[in-house]
Amino acid sequence: MTRKRIRFAVPIFYFLFSLFAFLANAQAPPAAKAPAKQRADLLVTGGTIVTMDAERRVIEDGAIAVRGGVIVAIGPTAEIVAKYTGARSINASGRLVLPGLINTHNHAPMTLLRGLADDLTLQEWLEKYIFPAEAKNVTEDFVLWGTRLALLEMIRGGTTTYADMYYFEDAIARATKAAGMRGVLGETWIDFPAPDNKTHAEAIAYTEKFLKKWKGDPLIHAAVAPHAAFTNSEASLKDAAALARRYGAPILIHVSETKRENDEIRAKYGASPVAYLDRIGFLGPDVLAAHCVWLDAADIATLVKRDVGCAHNPSSNMMLASGAAPVGDMLRAGLRLGLGTDGPSGSNNDLNMMEEMDLAAKLQKVSRMDPRALSAEQALELATIGGARALHMEKEIGSLETGKKADIILLRTDLPHAVPSYNLYSSIVYTLKASDVVTVIINGRTVMQNRRVLTLNEAGVLAKAKEYAQKVKESLAAPPQ
Amino acid sequence: MTRKRIRFAVPIFYFLFSLFAFLANAQAPPAAKAPAKQRADLLVTGGTIVTMDAERRVIEDGAIAVRGGVIVAIGPTAEIVAKYTGARSINASGRLVLPGLINTHNHAPMTLLRGLADDLTLQEWLEKYIFPAEAKNVTEDFVLWGTRLALLEMIRGGTTTYADMYYFEDAIARATKAAGMRGVLGETWIDFPAPDNKTHAEAIAYTEKFLKKWKGDPLIHAAVAPHAAFTNSEASLKDAAALARRYGAPILIHVSETKRENDEIRAKYGASPVAYLDRIGFLGPDVLAAHCVWLDAADIATLVKRDVGCAHNPSSNMMLASGAAPVGDMLRAGLRLGLGTDGPSGSNNDLNMMEEMDLAAKLQKVSRMDPRALSAEQALELATIGGARALHMEKEIGSLETGKKADIILLRTDLPHAVPSYNLYSSIVYTLKASDVVTVIINGRTVMQNRRVLTLNEAGVLAKAKEYAQKVKESLAAPPQ
Repeated sequence: MTRKRIRFAVPIFYFLFSLFAFLANAQAPPAAKAPAKQRADLLVTGGTIVTMDAERRVIEDGAIAVRGGVIVAIGPTAEIVAKYTGARSINASGRLVLPGLINTHNHAPMTLLRGLADDLTLQEWLEKYIFPAEAKNVTEDFVLWGTRLALLEMIRGGTTTYADMYYFEDAIARATKAAGMRGVLGETWIDFPAPDNKTHAEAIAYTEKFLKKWKGDPLIHAAVAPHAAFTNSEASLKDAAALARRYGAPILIHVSETKRENDEIRAKYGASPVAYLDRIGFLGPDVLAAHCVWLDAADIATLVKRDVGCAHNPSSNMMLASGAAPVGDMLRAGLRLGLGTDGPSGSNNDLNMMEEMDLAAKLQKVSRMDPRALSAEQALELATIGGARALHMEKEIGSLETGKKADIILLRTDLPHAVPSYNLYSSIVYTLKASDVVTVIINGRTVMQNRRVLTLNEAGVLAKAKEYAQKVKESLAAPPQ
Repeated sequence: MTRKRIRFAVPIFYFLFSLFAFLANAQAPPAAKAPAKQRADLLVTGGTIVTMDAERRVIEDGAIAVRGGVIVAIGPTAEIVAKYTGARSINASGRLVLPGLINTHNHAPMTLLRGLADDLTLQEWLEKYIFPAEAKNVTEDFVLWGTRLALLEMIRGGTTTYADMYYFEDAIARATKAAGMRGVLGETWIDFPAPDNKTHAEAIAYTEKFLKKWKGDPLIHAAVAPHAAFTNSEASLKDAAALARRYGAPILIHVSETKRENDEIRAKYGASPVAYLDRIGFLGPDVLAAHCVWLDAADIATLVKRDVGCAHNPSSNMMLASGAAPVGDMLRAGLRLGLGTDGPSGSNNDLNMMEEMDLAAKLQKVSRMDPRALSAEQALELATIGGARALHMEKEIGSLETGKKADIILLRTDLPHAVPSYNLYSSIVYTLKASDVVTVIINGRTVMQNRRVLTLNEAGVLAKAKEYAQKVKESLAAPPQ
């Protein structure tokens, strides 16, 4: 047969075949017609799903259907694809599929001060470097670019929700929203002139406007963040709590990070930081307390009774030599406990939740001299559903279940450092790295695909970060004005 | 002008230009002739070189010339390229150039048991999982493939030399040599039937043959590795030391890893492990002692006096809850101290020297409650020149200097987690990751280029590793024979 004749024969064959199929179908009984599939915006299929639900279900060859930013179905791939048709789909074959990681304590814009000064006492670090650098450099634009840099790093490491305490928090909220990240973002109040608000009155005005502006946003939870019991007066703490409660907003604060803080508060108020905060009516189910290293049994009981959430920051607590939080006691008491990186300057120095899990387990083991002190599964809990509980958001995020927000991450497991695998939780916590996160979905939107962040201009952010670092260096070298 | 005329004009112009250049040159005075450049096998140019030499020189826009596996020149790029011409060259512009990392303690083939059983007491871990799994599975072929997997991971993370203690160590040596890696590889002796040698006589015969075979090899240093004072009799320890010393071979051993080990040795011999080993004449400048967690001041003084090297393993000591070694005291006493990962099963679970540096600094800080306890620069020292000193190889490796072996790694610094950088040591230790290592050169040979390992078949190794993991799972599920 010549080429021309083949070209001619193909459409004829196709026409005859279609005609035959049409006639055959017309004669089929109507009862055999398959039910119409439900529409989904996104199907993630073929992965090993580590749900972190109450039963700790792991679904081999599992799939997730997402509609309107929410998980509408989860189960074996065959079942899900029989019921749903997706406008988009992601093949997760060979990947682990996890709930997005939740970083419960951060100061995102401090990425621009990453590694500015390390290996110093807390006092020297703050007084010689961080406070002067912040006073001379932190503007709204600095905060915006620092947050973008932090968002890039967090997304690349599988974080889908983070809690933050810094200045110009509205700029942080705008950058976070634009990147498609979920955030609990607290405007910081502190009893000295901050880079944004110079007086208490200014702080109240800024924060009230901030809370109003973001009320009801699907991604941004505007919050109030009085710095700590040793840096805020009782009046400031009470005002912050009252303002937050007027708007139903979360409250973020540092609590019992160092022994020195405990000693100071005890000397001043005759109580531990937790007991003092409780006495003034500060504690409640809207509070997230960061660090909580130096808690005694009574403190833990109080935090549980008041339904307060806590953020454990192993890397920061090690680097600043703050101590090892009593994580085992906290968990046994039923305390709402999550994991955080803390800020990336002098106290970490990165925003890597995969490392934070590994460190959480290892720090507990060595500090309690018991290798069973915190297991890999418990460490992953802290970074997912535990973080959600700490933020009082466990009905929305923290696990992969029908009805929850579609915050989903995919990890590769095929690189030499991750092979072989005998136990999924162990592999995730002790061997997988931030660089193994390949795809990140937040609220149903794919924000990173095959390690390319889709919602930020990476090259532009890095160039701007280097510019700002140059300015910071020059500002610290300059003679005092 | 038409195209044809241009085509015709170009060679004529070129001919005239060449003629003119030739005539001009012929008239130049002979004195102006540039000296002939020296030949190098490899030039690495344009990087920021962190030498780790005694002056801690950092060379911006630096270059290294390599010939015969040795660094023949190092300095500013302009100087080096004026003097040397390279058969090959690597553009390191925008990269950090560091001495290769030295992992001073490993059990490489245990990669195949990675994460087999974690979060258990040492006893349960060993007796229920590791010993049965090893007894049922460890063959020469298992060791060969496990080592290849370890080599892939180590090279991808910037390790260029490692010390190892396992069984069938000759297979480990063959795999290591083939991959182009440098190794100090110790055949393990232990007072019960091992997977390779069932009796003490067999162990002696195997090891003597092993030492003879590799004598004088440029990459492989065959060694003798009695397991520990609590698992080897005095006779076995003395025989091992005598055999090693007959061949001028290194001796590797575990020392004072746990408090329990110290208590046992004290009960049995009335001395600490270090004091006991010294009493029987075991210690000397050929010994590398792994762990050294539970040392007192007298132990440290003895180790310094006998010129023993030590391997600090922060990840393993945390994960197995062994404790925090007195690194500050060891360094102040002038002890030869390096860093190691330990084996990747239940005690880490990876072979990541970038993480080990970060952990070394953070563990010291929190365990001594002092953020100055170990600095980033000191942590990098431990992983480079410190490791070389611990292996008594500081004249050959551990820093980038003329006359030393060309063990060189290149790291990228342009990803979000590493930007900005205010201090090179801080960036390397606290922010850069194993995945940032792009190129690895060992003994002048490029073994990884742009993250592709050139000396191992990655896909083949991973497939074989998964096969072996399946066998291990089945062997542990099988009823006892």
